[in-house]
Amino acid sequence: MKKGACLYEGKAKRIYSTDEHEVLWVEYKDDATAFNGEKKDVLEGKGVLNNEISSLLFSKLKEAGIQSHFIEKLSSNEQLVKRVEIVPIEVVVRNIAAGSLVKRLGIERGTEFNPAILEFYYKDDSLGDPLFTEEHIRVMELASVEELSEIREIALHVNEQLKVIFETIGVQLVDFKLEFGREQSGAILLADEISPDTCRLWDIKTGESFDKDLFRFEQGNLQDGYTTILSRLGGINSCSK
Amino acid sequence: MKKGACLYEGKAKRIYSTDEHEVLWVEYKDDATAFNGEKKDVLEGKGVLNNEISSLLFSKLKEAGIQSHFIEKLSSNEQLVKRVEIVPIEVVVRNIAAGSLVKRLGIERGTEFNPAILEFYYKDDSLGDPLFTEEHIRVMELASVEELSEIREIALHVNEQLKVIFETIGVQLVDFKLEFGREQSGAILLADEISPDTCRLWDIKTGESFDKDLFRFEQGNLQDGYTTILSRLGGINSCSK
Repeated sequence: MKKGACLYEGKAKRIYSTDEHEVLWVEYKDDATAFNGEKKDVLEGKGVLNNEISSLLFSKLKEAGIQSHFIEKLSSNEQLVKRVEIVPIEVVVRNIAAGSLVKRLGIERGTEFNPAILEFYYKDDSLGDPLFTEEHIRVMELASVEELSEIREIALHVNEQLKVIFETIGVQLVDFKLEFGREQSGAILLADEISPDTCRLWDIKTGESFDKDLFRFEQGNLQDGYTTILSRLGGINSCSK
Repeated sequence: MKKGACLYEGKAKRIYSTDEHEVLWVEYKDDATAFNGEKKDVLEGKGVLNNEISSLLFSKLKEAGIQSHFIEKLSSNEQLVKRVEIVPIEVVVRNIAAGSLVKRLGIERGTEFNPAILEFYYKDDSLGDPLFTEEHIRVMELASVEELSEIREIALHVNEQLKVIFETIGVQLVDFKLEFGREQSGAILLADEISPDTCRLWDIKTGESFDKDLFRFEQGNLQDGYTTILSRLGGINSCSK
């Protein structure tokens, strides 16, 4: 597989074409951003940690029957994925109240939700990724009713699997963000990444954060938190070796 | 009926008890506020106009089979209503894109929605009345699934009726906000007011605003706009007589 031109550079990843049209080459960057890009830094090793964790989680989900765009890990900070057209909806699944939910609605931090809450945010940096509803998605024609129903179903299935994966390693899956894409056939596929950049992860015993809140609120060393997650998941931080 | 103690003073109305426990006395004020209270003024005659218009609209809705808390108009700026426990949800029905929807999601102003969009906002001034979803309402236990379904149904029924009422007088019903309450029996009842303070109303021919946007964006004289609505509806502005 040959790496081609850079097609897109996001906040945390660069996407390249390959010599196969339906396959893309993803490079995880060390850039950390928060609050819609207002807070920025470069944190050495973050790209490797997120690539390792995301590759591991997508593989575990595949074993559980959840397909994603992930094909294989190429190197410590690179992976191959299927080309999809990203649906501009950020799907947030919440098991425990934290972050924007607490701030927006005054719900007490730590409140448990069972069943989980599912939220949709319009993926648009210029608008600050606002919360929106299925009715907005309908009139904005961002996804069909059938697609949205499938996205909802996959998101809840992912939640059930990830909750168990994290509980097994002593971590509470507080909330997480998913993105979805359309394959050439039109089929909906789980995409983007699943990492401590996109999940809120708390130690079950101590309540300690192992996720991007370490960076957002300067609560501690981000790489240490992410490394804890990777090693508890049984992965090897190939960067620090 | 005797007016008792003032039970509550809101931004646009004062609510008093009466000698009947299940009946409240509403006094419409001349205070105008916008942007969650950041912009304020006293606009003489506004209370009368809103009381007249709201009384008229609640009466017309009653003829169409939609019950509300409205009992009767008492004077130019007063009415009697049934006592209800207000559900802290502002229900917004949108037929045409305007206001916060345009700003939040970048939808083009004037885009028509058919069927209408229904939105829920958490009625909490300290949080700035944020948009929220049925799932938030569920976990916050603000209304039961059955109540919410009834609220949705009544709101859409009100929309169908109001659209016709306004179309008949050459006015487009762009969007409006409703509030609901629980009667002592627990039954859901349309409450609050329906006026140019709570509706966006555009002249069908000229596009001119006849609603609170006149005040919000200093587009013209608010009382003139509200008087146009009242007189087109066949009502008499008893203040200016």
